[in-house]
Amino acid sequence: MKLLTPGPVTTHPDVRAAMAVDLAPWDNDVCPLYASIVARLRALGGGAEATHAALPRQGSGHFGVEAALRGVLRPGERILIPMTGAYAERMARLARAAGREPVALPASATRPIDPDTVRQALADPTIAMVGLVQSETSSGIVNDLAAIGAVARAAGRRLLVDAVSAFGALPLDVSAQPEIAAAVFTPNKCLEGMPGIAVVLARRDALPAPGEAGSWCFDLADILEHGEKRGWATFRFTPPVQSVNALAVALDRLDAEGREARLARYTDNAAALRTGMQAIGLRPVLEARHQGPIVSNIAAPADPAWDLQRFVDALKKRGYLISNFYDTEVPSFRVGTIGVLDRTDFEGFSAAAGEALAEMGIGRRSAA
Amino acid sequence: MKLLTPGPVTTHPDVRAAMAVDLAPWDNDVCPLYASIVARLRALGGGAEATHAALPRQGSGHFGVEAALRGVLRPGERILIPMTGAYAERMARLARAAGREPVALPASATRPIDPDTVRQALADPTIAMVGLVQSETSSGIVNDLAAIGAVARAAGRRLLVDAVSAFGALPLDVSAQPEIAAAVFTPNKCLEGMPGIAVVLARRDALPAPGEAGSWCFDLADILEHGEKRGWATFRFTPPVQSVNALAVALDRLDAEGREARLARYTDNAAALRTGMQAIGLRPVLEARHQGPIVSNIAAPADPAWDLQRFVDALKKRGYLISNFYDTEVPSFRVGTIGVLDRTDFEGFSAAAGEALAEMGIGRRSAA
Repeated sequence: MKLLTPGPVTTHPDVRAAMAVDLAPWDNDVCPLYASIVARLRALGGGAEATHAALPRQGSGHFGVEAALRGVLRPGERILIPMTGAYAERMARLARAAGREPVALPASATRPIDPDTVRQALADPTIAMVGLVQSETSSGIVNDLAAIGAVARAAGRRLLVDAVSAFGALPLDVSAQPEIAAAVFTPNKCLEGMPGIAVVLARRDALPAPGEAGSWCFDLADILEHGEKRGWATFRFTPPVQSVNALAVALDRLDAEGREARLARYTDNAAALRTGMQAIGLRPVLEARHQGPIVSNIAAPADPAWDLQRFVDALKKRGYLISNFYDTEVPSFRVGTIGVLDRTDFEGFSAAAGEALAEMGIGRRSAA
Repeated sequence: MKLLTPGPVTTHPDVRAAMAVDLAPWDNDVCPLYASIVARLRALGGGAEATHAALPRQGSGHFGVEAALRGVLRPGERILIPMTGAYAERMARLARAAGREPVALPASATRPIDPDTVRQALADPTIAMVGLVQSETSSGIVNDLAAIGAVARAAGRRLLVDAVSAFGALPLDVSAQPEIAAAVFTPNKCLEGMPGIAVVLARRDALPAPGEAGSWCFDLADILEHGEKRGWATFRFTPPVQSVNALAVALDRLDAEGREARLARYTDNAAALRTGMQAIGLRPVLEARHQGPIVSNIAAPADPAWDLQRFVDALKKRGYLISNFYDTEVPSFRVGTIGVLDRTDFEGFSAAAGEALAEMGIGRRSAA
């Protein structure tokens, strides 16, 4: 079964094999793994050891975003969040629940956020920071991190970046963008690893003293201090050590492929998907120029016979798994173009999708 | 390598194999797994569906304890915590960081907490709840949950139970003990599964409305509401789905063995360890009558040649892994007697420990 989902993704057999081991998290043979991984992730994001730290955390991407919000914002501080989609909305909800104040900036669901609207919003002096979703997993739009960052920097503000579905493929360089206070990502998207961990790549000078996060489990400063006290960066509390082990293998594979080559492969996957969908009469939701390489939404056919779950099941019989829920206002099905997949997979998927539609009695003509 | 640690533990090959799969967390073939697991865990803890829910959470046991504290205590409420060891101290720190107020009740490190001292402390009307560690992973002491619960019930208080290193072997019956507001556990201890998840078995009437936890990621009421809205109990956000898959296999194995038989096996493991250690001249820290079946501390030999890491390394060469840090005031090494292990493993370990001491030049006579 190929997972054409925006993460967890299809992984390499070596990554999966690294999960099937018993490991004691604090064994001296295991601990160097943590130090190695955080150093590699920091470097991959452009961070220098003197200025930045990659702080690993148990949980999903949202756990990383909450930890980052608690780390770089004090209680009551206001964060401007362009409402680029479901993940921006979630960042806002995470902030509000943690006692920080999100300020929603309306945004289009079909175009990247315009840096000018961010510039205008930052005229409000009560706004302390900008929260940006780099690649919106709901819409598939990639926002211009460099341009938004430049606007924030010019306005004397810092940026919190949800890079969850971007990191490992799309560029991130926290040294070139010193306004980035923290960027959050997980292993189970473009890094092609397994779920269970979130990582916050943070500026050291953006973190307060330990004890100010309002949560011990989410206290990045405590993780940093604890790791440095032990002589190696480490997890606080028992990590999902098998996922960490799998991430090490996944990083080896990324090193071998190269980040730019991986991005090129994903971009080619998305292009093959677009061509394939159009060939069977289906319409991608986004214009080609706004379509990111991570996830694509394809408009549901305007046909009474259309049923998302039935379509998903028909594809599954053919070896392809896609998301079975809507994450956009316009009904559309969502296809991830990341993971250990190449264009032949998307050509195969397109053929299978054509068969699935035919099986459902949906012809080319009725496709919207 | 056998893991003689108090978790993550040595698992069965079938449990490990269940980790090495690509799974899409919201696939319709995967979701029933969550419903099945939470129903099984609820039943295992004695909870009825009408009154209790098993709420799964990403992360380690501490993440579960923080979620439970935020769920069953309002901000500023006071929780009496008998200071039975390192894990009680951590519960207190988790509570304080989350804005709840821990009240430390001094306790012995070598005997279970006396229910009478809890009764006396509950004369203080400002104390809202009692927080108890059922099996202290630091000392190996098992506290009398039924007796402490009876004291709390008589005083009109509820109980938050850290059952992390107990659940699956030691008894828990939340229906027989209605004063238990929440009990927390993980798959990677006596359930013999893998790390990555914590579960809070909570009374439904102990949880507030969603939005009152002070953290979205740690909002048990939101998890409950979300799960019931979807028609099956579910995770909020991407779970470490491989660990969930492994837990299903681990629960099958527990069903086959039976909880009481598992407890008997662990008890036999601890007895074999005690006998073996005494045979090579080493002294268990606890009196036999206070020694629990989960973890045993063995006093470090009073010999200048003693070095914990060297001992650990010498055992590792022989195929046995134990903890490499001290978690007690008296220097002692810690041996977990849980996981897929039986008395032959502890006989083998004892022989290996004797060889390791000899290799370090520590004779029987110098053992304390």
